[in-house]
Amino acid sequence: MVEPFDVVDLIHTKRDRGALSPEQIRWLVDAYTRGYVGDEQMAAMTMAIFLNGMGREEVRDLTLAMVASGDRLDFQGLSKKTTDKHSTGGVGDKITLPLAPLVASFGVAVPQLSGRGLGHTGGTLDKLESIPGWRASLSPEEFLSQLESVGAVICAAGAKLAPADGKLYALRDITGTVESIPLIASSIMSKKIAEGTAALVLDVKFGSGAFLQDPVRGRELAETMVRLGTDAGVATVALLTNMNVPLGLAIGNANEVRESVEVLAGGGPADVVELTLALAREMLALAGLPDADVEAALKSGAAMDTWRAMITAQGGDPDAALPTPKHTQVVTAPRSGVLVRQDALPFGIGAWRLGAGRARQQDPVQHAAGIDLHAKPGDVVTAGQPLFTMSSNDGDRFERALEAIEGAYEIADPGTAVETGGALIQGRITA
Amino acid sequence: MVEPFDVVDLIHTKRDRGALSPEQIRWLVDAYTRGYVGDEQMAAMTMAIFLNGMGREEVRDLTLAMVASGDRLDFQGLSKKTTDKHSTGGVGDKITLPLAPLVASFGVAVPQLSGRGLGHTGGTLDKLESIPGWRASLSPEEFLSQLESVGAVICAAGAKLAPADGKLYALRDITGTVESIPLIASSIMSKKIAEGTAALVLDVKFGSGAFLQDPVRGRELAETMVRLGTDAGVATVALLTNMNVPLGLAIGNANEVRESVEVLAGGGPADVVELTLALAREMLALAGLPDADVEAALKSGAAMDTWRAMITAQGGDPDAALPTPKHTQVVTAPRSGVLVRQDALPFGIGAWRLGAGRARQQDPVQHAAGIDLHAKPGDVVTAGQPLFTMSSNDGDRFERALEAIEGAYEIADPGTAVETGGALIQGRITA
Repeated sequence: MVEPFDVVDLIHTKRDRGALSPEQIRWLVDAYTRGYVGDEQMAAMTMAIFLNGMGREEVRDLTLAMVASGDRLDFQGLSKKTTDKHSTGGVGDKITLPLAPLVASFGVAVPQLSGRGLGHTGGTLDKLESIPGWRASLSPEEFLSQLESVGAVICAAGAKLAPADGKLYALRDITGTVESIPLIASSIMSKKIAEGTAALVLDVKFGSGAFLQDPVRGRELAETMVRLGTDAGVATVALLTNMNVPLGLAIGNANEVRESVEVLAGGGPADVVELTLALAREMLALAGLPDADVEAALKSGAAMDTWRAMITAQGGDPDAALPTPKHTQVVTAPRSGVLVRQDALPFGIGAWRLGAGRARQQDPVQHAAGIDLHAKPGDVVTAGQPLFTMSSNDGDRFERALEAIEGAYEIADPGTAVETGGALIQGRITA
Repeated sequence: MVEPFDVVDLIHTKRDRGALSPEQIRWLVDAYTRGYVGDEQMAAMTMAIFLNGMGREEVRDLTLAMVASGDRLDFQGLSKKTTDKHSTGGVGDKITLPLAPLVASFGVAVPQLSGRGLGHTGGTLDKLESIPGWRASLSPEEFLSQLESVGAVICAAGAKLAPADGKLYALRDITGTVESIPLIASSIMSKKIAEGTAALVLDVKFGSGAFLQDPVRGRELAETMVRLGTDAGVATVALLTNMNVPLGLAIGNANEVRESVEVLAGGGPADVVELTLALAREMLALAGLPDADVEAALKSGAAMDTWRAMITAQGGDPDAALPTPKHTQVVTAPRSGVLVRQDALPFGIGAWRLGAGRARQQDPVQHAAGIDLHAKPGDVVTAGQPLFTMSSNDGDRFERALEAIEGAYEIADPGTAVETGGALIQGRITA
């Protein structure tokens, strides 16, 4: 075939702060997917995009080109409305686990295609795989059948959805171009648009444990994604949430499942409950149920019933004991006072080093590894009381984990300002 | 081996406008040369360098790391002083051909390791290969022996000199990062430092037919390279020269050899003679002969004798007929007046499209293809007189060549200002 464009010309255009046309972007993504444009050429292009940015139309065209690179699911035959949620990822972010069954308990379908963790942010599938028997891979028929019967499905996205994004994300990961708003937005939204959900709630995190530290950049990312979803016919809303502090008390895999089950049982840490309820209300409102009493569904056990049905449908035993670690180490408070700081990123890195996360895509994770916090910022602590417990199957991992966490928390005199970066939910962005 | 750095960290540093340390740059170049750092990672790095620049120390460290990636020649055993020249390349730039034998005729050694052309700028080896029998590849022993006996050698650089540069240049070529001052300067100077010459004169071109259009950027490149050479112990001077208009009357391969022989015979176009003499004076001054009468060496036949010895030593027949084209097409003046514009780049592209140059490294060139100009800017022309002749072995190449050249020249009323961008030699940069 005769190629309509020269990739070096396109790189020059972006390098020199020009804009790529819809035809150029469509060709670029297609040519990259089929291997005509090489990884080294796409790496130069993504660095130019990282440094010079992209206009609104370019981000839209890039997103739609990545959707067009693969299949697009269709839930026309389903008797339920679909609504989904995506989080940009953070430390201790297990919200999908209680959220999907809670929302599904109202008769709405939640087709949650998830990923695995890489680096210090965990992956929903890694957490659920702590549950004996549970499997992440479903056939398209199993997926649709479970959506109809249970309502909630959390499973692995097949390679057929937005394959260009899969290829491009792996490239960005090794070439230092992850933290770019046009590239993050198009990556997330291409997968969610291809997934076929009618409605989408985005949890866009900012702060130490998030992709983007700066709330202003977080808001920009949220606005970009809401626009992309809306333009593609997906009803989209975003919450802008604070990720300066770990979410909840559990950071890891099995311990995050335990905490999620506490929330489904009507308990659990206040911040996890607050965010779960807020996201559930948004998802249900987009599905036409603005008045759903989501707190009642937690108290009544309706959400827990859906959780058990969801786990069972995917081969898991909701009553089975979760894995326990071979080694634990408790860190105690060096003094009495108020815990005024608990920095998300170092705790995320610590849990990762304990074995809860992976450094490379093909690495396994330890399901019992991680960190359990025993105090949160604002709590009064006494010298010698446990502050957090580290867990791992490898005793030699504790030292490196502690290196990461050292200096990440601080106990001060009563009255000292608590450094959390403010409220958990800081903004709501709509089309 | 345990790698001391993470390439993604280094990319982040440069992406975020930081500076790389000498240790980081040495490791990066070494790890890239041995394949641990991938092409896609180096492509992202070079785009970050292109857009964010490099400090003086970084350019020096990059250059020295590329020198250290291979062999460094040593002319200690030679009875003659060494002096060399490098041009950043332009349209019709055949200066090396008369220059090397002219300088060598004074008993100085010129170890000129040259390249092949790519794109619209020609390559010295391609031009010399028009001469029947002449060969570009010499063994190290042949090279040294010819330097001692004839003085002038123009041959292909082996793959052992600055191999990192060879790999990086090929990558830059396909990833849109060629026109970067730190990358151009380190590429050129790593090869010249590895070549082992004691003195070096740089012909840094600016204007339409050059890598860099802008004289300010040309001066910056020249200053960077003079500093790099000086720091590495090579006596280095640069001339800043105008490449808005083709150099001489011949653009191609065989026709450029013909024009060079005219200069060696004491004739030739004024601009080619002017630049040859200026560069020869600089090279000889650096070799300790500031008063050498270079004009006399052209008139006396001394330079021609060295040319004939140089061609013969490399298997060529200086008296053999040069290849002639299968087809020619003459373009005539559409009106009478003064030729006020003759833009180098379109004529370079035209000659390239006629077959004089190559699009890909592995393509052959047509030695008889090219363009012969019959008028230069400032010349008075009469309607219908030949302006230039195009030559090719393929009749179907003329149309595409004419498309490139159309609009690249202009005949105006007498008194109209001639657009050449000023004098041929516009600056001299020393350490």
